[in-house]
Amino acid sequence: MSQKPSIPKGTRDFGPEQMMRRTFIFDKIREVFLKYGYQPLETPAMETLDTLLGKYGDEGDRLIFKILNSGQYLAKLDNSEKLYLTDHVGQEDSAVSQWLTGKISEKALRYDLTVPFARYVVQNRNEISFPFKRFQIQPVWRADRPQKGRYREFYQCDADVIGSDSLLNEAELIHIIDEVFNILNIRISIKINNRKILAGIAEFIGYKDKITDITVAIDKLEKIGLEKVKEELADRGIPARSIDQLQPVFELSGGNEEKLNNLREILHSSEIGLRGIEEITRLLGYLKSTGIENRVDLDLTLARGLTYYTGAIIEVKAMDIEIGSICGGGRYDDLTGIFGLPGVSGVGISFGADRIYDTLEQLNAFPPSTRKSSFAIFLNLGETEISWCLPLAAELRKAGIPVEIYPDPAKMKKQLSYANQHSIHFAIMAGETEIANNEVSVKNMETGEQVRVSLIQLADYFKNQRD
Amino acid sequence: MSQKPSIPKGTRDFGPEQMMRRTFIFDKIREVFLKYGYQPLETPAMETLDTLLGKYGDEGDRLIFKILNSGQYLAKLDNSEKLYLTDHVGQEDSAVSQWLTGKISEKALRYDLTVPFARYVVQNRNEISFPFKRFQIQPVWRADRPQKGRYREFYQCDADVIGSDSLLNEAELIHIIDEVFNILNIRISIKINNRKILAGIAEFIGYKDKITDITVAIDKLEKIGLEKVKEELADRGIPARSIDQLQPVFELSGGNEEKLNNLREILHSSEIGLRGIEEITRLLGYLKSTGIENRVDLDLTLARGLTYYTGAIIEVKAMDIEIGSICGGGRYDDLTGIFGLPGVSGVGISFGADRIYDTLEQLNAFPPSTRKSSFAIFLNLGETEISWCLPLAAELRKAGIPVEIYPDPAKMKKQLSYANQHSIHFAIMAGETEIANNEVSVKNMETGEQVRVSLIQLADYFKNQRD
Repeated sequence: MSQKPSIPKGTRDFGPEQMMRRTFIFDKIREVFLKYGYQPLETPAMETLDTLLGKYGDEGDRLIFKILNSGQYLAKLDNSEKLYLTDHVGQEDSAVSQWLTGKISEKALRYDLTVPFARYVVQNRNEISFPFKRFQIQPVWRADRPQKGRYREFYQCDADVIGSDSLLNEAELIHIIDEVFNILNIRISIKINNRKILAGIAEFIGYKDKITDITVAIDKLEKIGLEKVKEELADRGIPARSIDQLQPVFELSGGNEEKLNNLREILHSSEIGLRGIEEITRLLGYLKSTGIENRVDLDLTLARGLTYYTGAIIEVKAMDIEIGSICGGGRYDDLTGIFGLPGVSGVGISFGADRIYDTLEQLNAFPPSTRKSSFAIFLNLGETEISWCLPLAAELRKAGIPVEIYPDPAKMKKQLSYANQHSIHFAIMAGETEIANNEVSVKNMETGEQVRVSLIQLADYFKNQRD
Repeated sequence: MSQKPSIPKGTRDFGPEQMMRRTFIFDKIREVFLKYGYQPLETPAMETLDTLLGKYGDEGDRLIFKILNSGQYLAKLDNSEKLYLTDHVGQEDSAVSQWLTGKISEKALRYDLTVPFARYVVQNRNEISFPFKRFQIQPVWRADRPQKGRYREFYQCDADVIGSDSLLNEAELIHIIDEVFNILNIRISIKINNRKILAGIAEFIGYKDKITDITVAIDKLEKIGLEKVKEELADRGIPARSIDQLQPVFELSGGNEEKLNNLREILHSSEIGLRGIEEITRLLGYLKSTGIENRVDLDLTLARGLTYYTGAIIEVKAMDIEIGSICGGGRYDDLTGIFGLPGVSGVGISFGADRIYDTLEQLNAFPPSTRKSSFAIFLNLGETEISWCLPLAAELRKAGIPVEIYPDPAKMKKQLSYANQHSIHFAIMAGETEIANNEVSVKNMETGEQVRVSLIQLADYFKNQRD
């Protein structure tokens, strides 16, 4: 029974080179998270359907991967349910599958890291000392239609602080962003906004409830131009007089300070708007006092996650290539309310590992260490020779030098090609002559140069080569 | 809509302390794998049902978590299938659920790391340069009945070499085991056996096909005694004369060399038996020439995975506590055959992360580094004071010292209790006086001692405290 093996659509294997590079990215992000006092958390891949359903909208509910109950799940239906199934299975009714899912599935794969985090916090509320700063680096699963850059299994790298209103948290998360991308050698532009300012603008023109329409329109300014944006706002039921009031908002320009001063005048009558301006001002003040490497700009068109963010909104783009957002986040005020713990404010960011990977690849910016495997390999010239090499390999490993032993006495060409394909720096050989002289031949795989090294000097020789 | 949140039976959250400890274990294992030239691989959580079914026996097939197809999966049944379902859903027939699963599920969660590895190798056979040495540290899922120490989601840490017959691989894997447990500070006993020796014994008494029965019986020797073992063998259809022939096998004693010498005499007429003895002898020779710290003993009762191992069998137990096997492995000769690539030999080991965790916990052997989070925390005495501290925090982080900033101006008691609960070593405070003097107060959270440190010396002060 021979099969042509494949993996499910939208999923990926990560081979050695990709893994070295992904691990590099995750390790660097993890290091920075830890340096700022964020603590690691992992939650199970499976959550109960109750935990996940209703948290991501109808579309989200459909995109959650459900897990079939084990055993004879059909036998567990009661008689009226069996009757219902028999009556309806013939109909092409979308509700039937959905109904059956509820009967034969109780678990599903997590859709993001935020809802499991909220569930964890509520479940462990009595053991957690707030503020709780956690990070979580794990895969999530979505039954999205696979396409370029969109996968059904992908990693999220989240850091959140929960149980603190302080804007110091926003400042800290932006510091983390700054430091991660400095370490990764990616120049970035950090955009910030505040939901309260957007609310203030909507209030100012007398259409509090149209905050989303207004934001979407502002968002399109650069793409479609002022006239089209005005048309769109009119289509969404905002009268010309109110649209005209937006003119000064559209015309905002200059640096952060100038923009904030102008906004403060425009929104002087909106309490919530002024609070948003005050928050951004303080946040920028915190950042200025500590100094960060990358630019931070107020951007009123930034509206990602508007439906759940209540304060700060953060988005990061790479400066040197067009790849979309590579990190984002914001403040949310009632994440745990759905699980019975209301009034807990949180703020978080999420690094887009796949896009960061693509960015580093396109910029050719992965460090050489992510390409290497072993430092040296003992070539296998035969049973006697390789047996003689075994204690040497043990000695080198004890000295911290990663070495391999080619296991089979294969043709030299095959062994050297293995060394090349694995980017191994040195091939070590010991034949009759070397053994007689208590030395080995060492071939530099890059230059082709070959030298004899005596056993006494072997560990030192490689230690020097590594430095 | 408030829910009491929970996680599925048999799954676990790993909070900060557990994560620090688990990461410690995984990192150490990973470091050693890399040092021996094993390369990282990750495969998707989901595999196609075709890839997984039929690889683990009927019981295994039942224990695989299946994923429900997305969308209106019932509408995709054809008319005769719908008819079959309506006809059979009323019956308590175990076959109906199983039949329906095949119609409404195409994917499942991986059950181990070995089958996905085999699938990966076959799928990428043209890009891989053999021998292929890979390691893989990922969770697997099994719909087993949860009980103490048995989970539905757990990590496996596997290393395998595929495409090489050489016994050097077995030696290398035992070296890896030795080094991992030395680093983890767990004293172990390594047992080895060889399937060919067991086959030789079965051949020697004239019951080649009863190798499993004979091995199971030998395995019970210590527990139930010689007489009961003989009864059991008789029950399994082996005549008294053959059972008597086993007497010298039962009586084997002494060190590895003595056992092997005796076995060589007993099995002198079994070609396969002698090959097994030869393999063990050479393996022990390799290990002796390099020197390993822990004991390696030939143990004929070792029969784990007998159904698929074809050569070496390896098992590791902790010396200082009773916890069962914490690592195991062996050689298999046709892993990739089921996917259309026959004749590729492999050998691998698997570390039991959960049992290693429990062992370290029971031995109280986790290093202190797995308990710490941040090194110091700036306490928040108010907006002015904490703003003054921000550049100091940035400076310390730049010097590589992990520090936190308490985000809210909460009561001192609450802030200190946070520091204690997170095992933070130092609390840093700056009030009016400190600020005026360009210094901070530093409280040692363990001793309670408090000192003033001038800003110029701050980074050095903490660097010295860390060393």
